Amino acid sequence: MQSELEKLREWLGVISDLGRSRALLAWDERTQMPPGGAEARVEQLATLARVRHERLISDELGRLLDEASRAVDGLAHDSDEACLVRMTRREWEKARRVPADLRAEITRASSRGETAWIEARERSDFAAFLPYLERNVDLKRRYAECFEGFEGFEHVYDPLLDDFEPGMTTAEMGAVLGELRDGIRALVAAVAGSGGEVDDACLYGEFPVEAQERLAREVVAELPLEEGAWRLDTTVHPFATAISPSDIRITTRFDEGYVGSSLWSVIHEAGHALYENGVARELSRTPLASPVSLGFHESQSRLWENWVGRGRPYLGHLHPRLVEIFPEAFGHVDALALYRAANKIEPSPIRVEADQVTYNLHIIMRFELELEIFEGRLELADLPEAWNARTADYLGLDVADDAQGVLQDVHWAEGAFGYFPTYSLGNLIAAQIWDAAREALPELDAQLGAGQLAPLRNWLGERLYRHGGKFMPKEMIERVVGGPISVAPYLRQLRERAAEIYGV
Amino acid sequence: MQSELEKLREWLGVISDLGRSRALLAWDERTQMPPGGAEARVEQLATLARVRHERLISDELGRLLDEASRAVDGLAHDSDEACLVRMTRREWEKARRVPADLRAEITRASSRGETAWIEARERSDFAAFLPYLERNVDLKRRYAECFEGFEGFEHVYDPLLDDFEPGMTTAEMGAVLGELRDGIRALVAAVAGSGGEVDDACLYGEFPVEAQERLAREVVAELPLEEGAWRLDTTVHPFATAISPSDIRITTRFDEGYVGSSLWSVIHEAGHALYENGVARELSRTPLASPVSLGFHESQSRLWENWVGRGRPYLGHLHPRLVEIFPEAFGHVDALALYRAANKIEPSPIRVEADQVTYNLHIIMRFELELEIFEGRLELADLPEAWNARTADYLGLDVADDAQGVLQDVHWAEGAFGYFPTYSLGNLIAAQIWDAAREALPELDAQLGAGQLAPLRNWLGERLYRHGGKFMPKEMIERVVGGPISVAPYLRQLRERAAEIYGV
Repeated sequence: MQSELEKLREWLGVISDLGRSRALLAWDERTQMPPGGAEARVEQLATLARVRHERLISDELGRLLDEASRAVDGLAHDSDEACLVRMTRREWEKARRVPADLRAEITRASSRGETAWIEARERSDFAAFLPYLERNVDLKRRYAECFEGFEGFEHVYDPLLDDFEPGMTTAEMGAVLGELRDGIRALVAAVAGSGGEVDDACLYGEFPVEAQERLAREVVAELPLEEGAWRLDTTVHPFATAISPSDIRITTRFDEGYVGSSLWSVIHEAGHALYENGVARELSRTPLASPVSLGFHESQSRLWENWVGRGRPYLGHLHPRLVEIFPEAFGHVDALALYRAANKIEPSPIRVEADQVTYNLHIIMRFELELEIFEGRLELADLPEAWNARTADYLGLDVADDAQGVLQDVHWAEGAFGYFPTYSLGNLIAAQIWDAAREALPELDAQLGAGQLAPLRNWLGERLYRHGGKFMPKEMIERVVGGPISVAPYLRQLRERAAEIYGV
Repeated sequence: MQSELEKLREWLGVISDLGRSRALLAWDERTQMPPGGAEARVEQLATLARVRHERLISDELGRLLDEASRAVDGLAHDSDEACLVRMTRREWEKARRVPADLRAEITRASSRGETAWIEARERSDFAAFLPYLERNVDLKRRYAECFEGFEGFEHVYDPLLDDFEPGMTTAEMGAVLGELRDGIRALVAAVAGSGGEVDDACLYGEFPVEAQERLAREVVAELPLEEGAWRLDTTVHPFATAISPSDIRITTRFDEGYVGSSLWSVIHEAGHALYENGVARELSRTPLASPVSLGFHESQSRLWENWVGRGRPYLGHLHPRLVEIFPEAFGHVDALALYRAANKIEPSPIRVEADQVTYNLHIIMRFELELEIFEGRLELADLPEAWNARTADYLGLDVADDAQGVLQDVHWAEGAFGYFPTYSLGNLIAAQIWDAAREALPELDAQLGAGQLAPLRNWLGERLYRHGGKFMPKEMIERVVGGPISVAPYLRQLRERAAEIYGV
């Protein structure tokens, strides 16, 4: 006789396998697939998503959850079993709120939107894209309406945000991003007013792809990912995806003229990979085997990229290797100059090319515009104007055209609203966890300077990674740092670094 | 309103997507996956197979087939729609005969058998492997029993054979392979008695992997596969698999000491790929999108490998390129000597290393032993003795030990019985189709000699490839060559080539 929990685990195991298989197909599409495979791949990806979704919203899963609930009654709140039932039930209840027709329509509109966006961006033609954007927004409003009365949802934007950051409300996000905006704007103004100049010319020049790839592999191998549990491939828009906790596909891209693109992007993606790689194996094939939320996931990519990878100790360790591989670029640049170049602050018009500080302003203006749209305060036809005004206000920049402005990102074309703010949230979480790690590991700087990254990984693994998705984000941040989301640590850390480099 | 046929196609589309997705996971496992992914991959593959199978054996598919049957009533026998309903119904009826428990047990036994075989082969310990083999045979007997009364099945081995070569009976296979055995044995004896010697030293030496890989890519690109519809990777046991008709993954292996391994293996696998690539796109996402049978599939790998790839015209075309890439090995070898080396006949103990002629004796002895086992004429404990006796009789060779004898192949360990004979059947079909192609294309030799392979591919595409799995093998061979399976063309072609080379 199978126990109730075993039956539940088996059902969830199939859902997990279908999701992971889909992830492999998506990775293959972006790294290996011959172009001829594109048409069939669309169908294959859709089928795996649909079959997975059918199992997720099934009455049978509800019945299994009811039975398992009785079985876990009395178990500790943080036991794997209690978490499994609690977290799965929330996902099941959310998924069942949305009619299949609406879900299919959203998928279609997303796909059409992306196609229309590609053309519209090429011609910088917002008007051609507008009907698709309107459709996406309209469908996402209807999506949000499905959650009337759902516990914790009050604002039309809450269900959208919740898909990426469970349990976080619009009011909470608005408060932290508002505080962050003011702090960042003040910092950027101070830097601009300091008259300080940072020379990052060493990062630009000629960097053969093979040499960059060798460096990227060394960096990832040292980071320290489990041996035999990852691979690195080239793609257009870098990402990392876990086919299982021990099979993680990291991707990057190489720019022959700019070594920073692959170097920090690969550390960023490896940060995502370290999180996935650290999830306890007992959680495998359950919904708990994935990190807490997008914000938490991003906190780890950014912790490793910005606080380790752009930090003085680790750059001091990396410097001789850079000199060795690229003697022309780095032969006459010392470790301090490298550190300064890696942390240059300068507003720029394209989000994905932004420095780590002004990046937040790109995010915050997107979040604010999304809110205005869903609260009915901004007509979509007026979006380019609003975009350009906000860019001038926050970044002090003129937008050349819509292709380099409101049309620069694919996400709205795909109907992803509520997604952008998790990037800045990740920055906040990263800073809080970084503070906690530094306190717990007094030798951390010396270790990073010696290229010993395992102590940090192990601490993060114990505190965060191994728990996978057992807890809601709010519970998780309390468990790791002993308090709620907070803006101050991030601003303090940015200010400290800016003080070192710009003397502000 | 969807028509009955559209509903059926949609249901079958999901089954197809699940199967193709599984093929991608299997390809990835053997070419890309980091070792850490192995454990989870077993579950993922099993889940995709199970979910696919559930849809295949569903009552719903039976209902859809009933409704679609009425819709295709009156349509031509060879219309896509009539074929779809007819061929799918046969697959559905076969699949439903086997209880889920038995199927699961067969899968488990196959997996355990493979693990046990790896160890047993390492230690050349047949006794350790025997219980697993007994279990596989016992389960396959029970599997065969499920088909009592199934149309056309009379012999216990019929259902096993039918899984690889639908509609072919044990009696028919026994008759053609018996005739083939006698013909091949006579030919091999004549060659041995001729005193003729073939020098194939040019194929052995030092062939850097990168140069071999360059050659392999050129050969495949020229073969002529659709551009952008394939890729070539390295693996341990080469195979080709179609993720869609325009996304075909070819694999090969490179032996630095023997150029023949990659050269003809890549042509062989590209032959499989040409078949998959040639299926009419209207059949996509249906069971008809795959070739007729294993025998037919193998006929195309062997036609391209042996009749094109080891033929004088094409080798004449390839020769200058070989000289260019490997001047040391081929600089002093003319095209005729290359042709002779490529067609050397010499009995050897390992099937996968055998020449194209004696290869059939490896197959035939396996088929005969399988029959003796399932007819209860051979105890499994006596299999090594029977194996060694047959090897001495057919190949004139002593078997060094069981590892190089009865334990050399994985297939019995996996429970695949009825599979081996399709290799020799492929040789017969290839020869019949080759005769028909030569008759239809009077300029064929000149075209192959000039590296123009498209006319042959186009003729094969029109006659065979585009029809995918619309017809049963018996119907297909009639359609392509105007008669039933026949042994004579193959023996005649082998004799002609042997006459040229050995003067027999």
